[in-house]
Amino acid sequence: MTKSADFSLSRPYPLARVERFDFETEVAIVGFGTAGSCAAIEAATAGAKVMLFEVTSGSGGAAALSGGELYVGGGGGSLQQRTAGFEDRTEDFYQYLLMAGGPNADEAKVRLYADNALEHLDWVIAQGVPFKNSYVAERVMEPLTDDCLVWTGSEEAWPFAQAARPAPRGHTVQQEGWGAGKLLMDTLAKRVKTLDVDVRFDARALALIADDNGHVQGLVVRIDGQPRFVRARNGVVLCAGGFIMNREMVKRHAPLLLRADNPIGTVDDGTGVRLGMSVGGAAINMSEGFATVPWYPPGSLVKGIFVNERGQRFINEDCYHGRVTQFILDQPGNHIWLLQDHETYAPGLLHENARIEIGAAADSWEEIERELKLPEGMLTATVAVYNRHAARGEDPLFHKAKKWLKPLDKPPFVALDCRIDHAQYTTFTLGGLDTLPTGEVLTESRDPIPGLYAAGRTACGLPRWGKGYSSGMSIADSTFFGRQAGRRAARARR
Amino acid sequence: MTKSADFSLSRPYPLARVERFDFETEVAIVGFGTAGSCAAIEAATAGAKVMLFEVTSGSGGAAALSGGELYVGGGGGSLQQRTAGFEDRTEDFYQYLLMAGGPNADEAKVRLYADNALEHLDWVIAQGVPFKNSYVAERVMEPLTDDCLVWTGSEEAWPFAQAARPAPRGHTVQQEGWGAGKLLMDTLAKRVKTLDVDVRFDARALALIADDNGHVQGLVVRIDGQPRFVRARNGVVLCAGGFIMNREMVKRHAPLLLRADNPIGTVDDGTGVRLGMSVGGAAINMSEGFATVPWYPPGSLVKGIFVNERGQRFINEDCYHGRVTQFILDQPGNHIWLLQDHETYAPGLLHENARIEIGAAADSWEEIERELKLPEGMLTATVAVYNRHAARGEDPLFHKAKKWLKPLDKPPFVALDCRIDHAQYTTFTLGGLDTLPTGEVLTESRDPIPGLYAAGRTACGLPRWGKGYSSGMSIADSTFFGRQAGRRAARARR
Repeated sequence: MTKSADFSLSRPYPLARVERFDFETEVAIVGFGTAGSCAAIEAATAGAKVMLFEVTSGSGGAAALSGGELYVGGGGGSLQQRTAGFEDRTEDFYQYLLMAGGPNADEAKVRLYADNALEHLDWVIAQGVPFKNSYVAERVMEPLTDDCLVWTGSEEAWPFAQAARPAPRGHTVQQEGWGAGKLLMDTLAKRVKTLDVDVRFDARALALIADDNGHVQGLVVRIDGQPRFVRARNGVVLCAGGFIMNREMVKRHAPLLLRADNPIGTVDDGTGVRLGMSVGGAAINMSEGFATVPWYPPGSLVKGIFVNERGQRFINEDCYHGRVTQFILDQPGNHIWLLQDHETYAPGLLHENARIEIGAAADSWEEIERELKLPEGMLTATVAVYNRHAARGEDPLFHKAKKWLKPLDKPPFVALDCRIDHAQYTTFTLGGLDTLPTGEVLTESRDPIPGLYAAGRTACGLPRWGKGYSSGMSIADSTFFGRQAGRRAARARR
Repeated sequence: MTKSADFSLSRPYPLARVERFDFETEVAIVGFGTAGSCAAIEAATAGAKVMLFEVTSGSGGAAALSGGELYVGGGGGSLQQRTAGFEDRTEDFYQYLLMAGGPNADEAKVRLYADNALEHLDWVIAQGVPFKNSYVAERVMEPLTDDCLVWTGSEEAWPFAQAARPAPRGHTVQQEGWGAGKLLMDTLAKRVKTLDVDVRFDARALALIADDNGHVQGLVVRIDGQPRFVRARNGVVLCAGGFIMNREMVKRHAPLLLRADNPIGTVDDGTGVRLGMSVGGAAINMSEGFATVPWYPPGSLVKGIFVNERGQRFINEDCYHGRVTQFILDQPGNHIWLLQDHETYAPGLLHENARIEIGAAADSWEEIERELKLPEGMLTATVAVYNRHAARGEDPLFHKAKKWLKPLDKPPFVALDCRIDHAQYTTFTLGGLDTLPTGEVLTESRDPIPGLYAAGRTACGLPRWGKGYSSGMSIADSTFFGRQAGRRAARARR
């Protein structure tokens, strides 16, 4: 009799050794988050027989913990963008996504998504997900109201604004208060239930099943404590999240993220990535992650400047909070301060949650420098240089946009303490399996592995560079490329 | 008839499909560099039947292009260290290696090597490799004379010196002039020839052969245009170098290295790493690489300071040149200058080769700032703060050691132009297959893959973090862990 111990996430189970299949399906999906839901909807709609296996007792995943934003643009703008007065050309959207993907951006995925994002939003709406036609101009993390369109990236900041015409692109699911991601997820799950999808909860993936050509033919799942053999005639779609909760994997691949203490995820133990690697799938961008400390709103704080424990500035502060945070994590030492003057300072909306506190307050920058025990002369020089240029509406060092520039010269001054080991830095991983836009998992030589697909954070998608991440990119990616994988797998009869 | 096209580096060839083996051996080694040589010597000495396959027509690999240094210490010091007056305790050596390995250092490998490095040096000497008993105190890249012991890391620099008592540990093979790595390699190759090792040149690895348990049983090589099936009863040892020459892989995994234009390697096309991944081997630290621009000697240049295109300093300049260079590559923009005054400046020994030129010369830092078109006030503030503290023998910002501190206040001043897209930045990769200290290749769950070993840059060894690299670490790693893999494979009769 076979036991769970006979199976390994890191070794495929040989097809020849399967005595009897417990289930026969066409498309087997691992993980009931946004990616898995969208894969299931598309595969079932295309007429395929679909089974969906979820390790927990309900649908969910990291997207359900999120603000529920989809990063959407191009095509001249969505209804919300156009109503708010933004024309968003596809080429600007494409260019922004490409820059956001960093030095290893996936051009093919960016192209496909840039050309189809508006249609995709319509599809999401057609599944029953509500979006209001409204716009919030202020700088926020996510709307607290039921409003839709927000700025959720570095679109207006250097160097993005210079390369792509800015537009707000965060389309938030309509719901009062934080966390509209839950409504998005519940709506997609409800839609799955209306379709002929055989969903099994409390079902843990133990291993892929492969033939001796290395083609994936199914998987082994544990249900009720027993290994069950699933034949997936068309293929297996891995939508099992990232690996932020697997601290060994994070240490091995993205150790910088361990500087931050607040991983965001549900299971996210690397099951999907490991299953893919077991049959030769290439994991890429594994060192990249998202990290953020919610240092704004209010937007007036953006007029302050960040300094490291050397008293040096290191970023244009008008970037997206996550980009700023990546630069924070690049700084040596644990201390980071956000400097404000009397005119720019206002208590941060989330500072108490984030454990951002006042580190020093004084009537001169010299006193602040001394209070913070910084090397004599550097912080004061940093502020003096900043003020000199800001007075002319310029920031030749970091190119912060003019609207956020003003000399920090009105006492009292404060230094907000954003210590990495004290404040709350939220993280998740961005590395995963290399895939084609169709979701086909690739080897290191970029050959597709027959019968294997991946989407969501198990794959490496549009968001793959912490310094380019913008809110809404993960959900855009998981829903859009989950759909592609489901469609491709449905067509892939072998 | 089978053709080369039937085989893939990213898919194991099924054992069941092999009709006839062309060769039968116990240990099959891929790659005739330092790692492969040492694996072959140990495996053959232990009584195993050994075949060694090399894709080129001769022995070589990246180590043969190097200065021929072995990073050795601990145990109270080598003969050379003790003669030069350095006691080198194992714990200091261990601590330095651990820090040098960065946030994902391999403690087990560091421990084994720290405890056995002196014995290992004796073993290398016993193979016929000469080392003189002499010491060069000056700061050099490698000795131009036939001398041995040199400083090749950041041992005396913050933060390393604060955690581990410094000692010079670069043991250079005895040879006049540059490039003693060739003599090291030739000597090891000569030693292989005295043993019963069946060496096949012009033999390209096409695929691993695995049974349906995922155990590696041999490999397919192309010889004379034909695929040949090699049965390796004990296992296959991958010593095929890194992947710096595979620009697609570099872009995918270590795109930062593409900022630098001078890859150092021979084949290094990722063959070894890809073969390991094909059977579920985990590749780790793939984003890490070594990079350097030879900005010293002479050592007096270390008294200058580096600034980025914002006019900010970013590193204690007394670190190893490779560590400084990693910080250079972290800076935004292309421009980097090394500032010197009349007392510190001397033409760099390698500056012409490296295309480091004088970017500006003037009698005041204000003029230098203007000539370099830097933001008004920052560079001058940087120099003023540095000078103020240097006059007291302090560097509170970056902790450069006192011996390198002096105010840069004697005109004329110069700014050496180290532009990333113009000067010569040499690179190689540090990521590779995760292995045990025995060379056994691990899956992402850290289970050994039976029958598969790796060493040298195909594996991820002691050097795995560009900011911690020290000259001699790669050869120490490839020779020492090549030996471990050869010994383990020799014993692994199945």
